Amino acid sequence: MTTYEVEQKFRIEDAAALEERLSSLGATPMVAIEQVDTYFAHPVRDFRETDEAFRLRRVGSQNFVTYKGPKIDATTKTRREIELPLPEGKDYAAEFRSLVEVLGFRVVADVSKVRRTTELNWEGGTIEVSLDDVADVGQYVELELVVPESEVASAKNRLASLASGLRLQLNERRSYLEILIGE
Amino acid sequence: MTTYEVEQKFRIEDAAALEERLSSLGATPMVAIEQVDTYFAHPVRDFRETDEAFRLRRVGSQNFVTYKGPKIDATTKTRREIELPLPEGKDYAAEFRSLVEVLGFRVVADVSKVRRTTELNWEGGTIEVSLDDVADVGQYVELELVVPESEVASAKNRLASLASGLRLQLNERRSYLEILIGE
Repeated sequence: MTTYEVEQKFRIEDAAALEERLSSLGATPMVAIEQVDTYFAHPVRDFRETDEAFRLRRVGSQNFVTYKGPKIDATTKTRREIELPLPEGKDYAAEFRSLVEVLGFRVVADVSKVRRTTELNWEGGTIEVSLDDVADVGQYVELELVVPESEVASAKNRLASLASGLRLQLNERRSYLEILIGE
Repeated sequence: MTTYEVEQKFRIEDAAALEERLSSLGATPMVAIEQVDTYFAHPVRDFRETDEAFRLRRVGSQNFVTYKGPKIDATTKTRREIELPLPEGKDYAAEFRSLVEVLGFRVVADVSKVRRTTELNWEGGTIEVSLDDVADVGQYVELELVVPESEVASAKNRLASLASGLRLQLNERRSYLEILIGE
């Protein structure tokens, strides 16, 4: 099923204060996971210009392949996303990477982060909140909803409201990859 | 692991006679399976010129993604092959196809066949023999060994010897896809 990932990302100024606010709003305990995203460049399309992304994600032993379409909204990072699970294991990830490379894609960078995720009830629905410590990039928080197309507008409003409630101000539209490679 | 698929394919003149010969050589009973291969064109590379193939294979509920490199031998169809399993199911296959298409690949054709496979001992090793009834293409037999690079030469010799033993003469170098689209 094609879904839309509606999210906003903010640079964290004061991690301790943010965690306190989340806790006071009833956020569930954080679960920390390590994620490594391998981003590919397309054989001919310039993903920086088309605002797309194609990546292999490894979360522990789990693998996923993800395509993200161009952002269709200036404030939130609403975009089409296709994320599919792949068989498990580091070996499989390496073989899938070989397959992608032999088709003419090129590895641009690995983005490695520790993500601590929690869920928060806000305005009658659940929003996923992720605190990311990204190697060579910094500390960020992402607010995210994955919704069908018909619910994109209301999802955006709920994210804006939560951001305000958490006193998040340093909105960041760039991806971690873009920040990492200095764009 | 990168392996080399060494194979020869022949058009079948007389299916009954061939099956009799296989049986007299001690071939194990045939197992019939239905295979549907969806072949993709690359966004910019012309796979007909580069002699490559990229496809999604569905065998019942099982899915595989396969890349085949250029043939490196004129007689056999020896080539580099990367074949990886994917999660099961028709829905997954459809989603993976969407992912491939959004990256700029285009579906060229579906090749649909009933394949009956058996194994034969020949000159001290096992050779896979597949009788294919290919929709809109015809009846063919494939002799195949998958070997590491160091064994490619001896594998070729064994296939030629078996082809001779089975009185197969109508060697066909084209893929089913090429025959189907009339090349």
